[in-house]
Amino acid sequence: MEREQYLAAVQPRMPEKRYIHTIGVMETAIDLAQRYGEDVKKAETVAILHDIAKYADIAWMEQIVRDEELDARLIGWGSELLHGPVGAYIAESEFGITDEDMLNAIRFHTTGRVGMSRLEKILFVADMIEPNRQFDGVERLRKKAQKDLDKAVRACIRHTLAFLIDTKRPIYPVSLECYNDVMSVE
Amino acid sequence: MEREQYLAAVQPRMPEKRYIHTIGVMETAIDLAQRYGEDVKKAETVAILHDIAKYADIAWMEQIVRDEELDARLIGWGSELLHGPVGAYIAESEFGITDEDMLNAIRFHTTGRVGMSRLEKILFVADMIEPNRQFDGVERLRKKAQKDLDKAVRACIRHTLAFLIDTKRPIYPVSLECYNDVMSVE
Repeated sequence: MEREQYLAAVQPRMPEKRYIHTIGVMETAIDLAQRYGEDVKKAETVAILHDIAKYADIAWMEQIVRDEELDARLIGWGSELLHGPVGAYIAESEFGITDEDMLNAIRFHTTGRVGMSRLEKILFVADMIEPNRQFDGVERLRKKAQKDLDKAVRACIRHTLAFLIDTKRPIYPVSLECYNDVMSVE
Repeated sequence: MEREQYLAAVQPRMPEKRYIHTIGVMETAIDLAQRYGEDVKKAETVAILHDIAKYADIAWMEQIVRDEELDARLIGWGSELLHGPVGAYIAESEFGITDEDMLNAIRFHTTGRVGMSRLEKILFVADMIEPNRQFDGVERLRKKAQKDLDKAVRACIRHTLAFLIDTKRPIYPVSLECYNDVMSVE
């Protein structure tokens, strides 16, 4: 499928603001793929699809977790944590994507995970630094992403955890495993 | 055993600065025990003993973890994480303490854990706010501890995790479980 077809498929599934975010992630992921020698078409496609499940029904997503035997820890964590793994399910079941690296990039784009591939890192970082994102420190993350993908991943996961603690929200254990993993190699 | 005997037993096992910290934790734990209706003698004793393993040999502590079948995740995390569980082991094997609540207070004083008892909370908080502690925000924690023990626990675990992220250090999974547990009831 071509870019325009993917875009046309995701647009009706999300509010305008999220679609604009999706375009931003796509552009950023393409830029990072070119910079770090990743397959540009793959980066473009996973970026377009990454939030396709963001506004899906939560009960339906939890049913997918059970039916497909996804990580049972996801139950109860809401759309924020469900939409990655369920997005990967949709990418495979509706769009016929079978490339496991692409599916993992969508699956883990919110939490990160231990041992992320280059494509996974690109989507994880692009999601956080795309041009429409506005938060304290985002410029520093953007600069890091231009220089060193691994350092950008570390900075992004640190930012995510610090943000969750600052806003008194729970931290998904896979995110902690990712944090501990990337910190241990610094 | 009386206070002076416990103090005499721990003093030779730690540098002067840590001993002064121990006295501070003891005084704070007694104060919190009186305030929140906990057994003062238990609070005093666990406070005196809490850091008894802090300067023990790491290889020896890791051997204790293996021999006593303590949480295997502790291996490799160094003295910072080992000294609580091994301190509880020493409290039992050398000092004959069998009160499980007291042993748990020593065991989990660094990490916290899901479902802490009142005594565990008192030591966890006292360790962080005792008068010799100096860090940004410690006064706020001290005030919270005077008003509401559970809120103080939440503030302390949030502070601990934020500090670890800020200093790019790994976070022990049990601490995350504790954080998620106390955040979920706020």
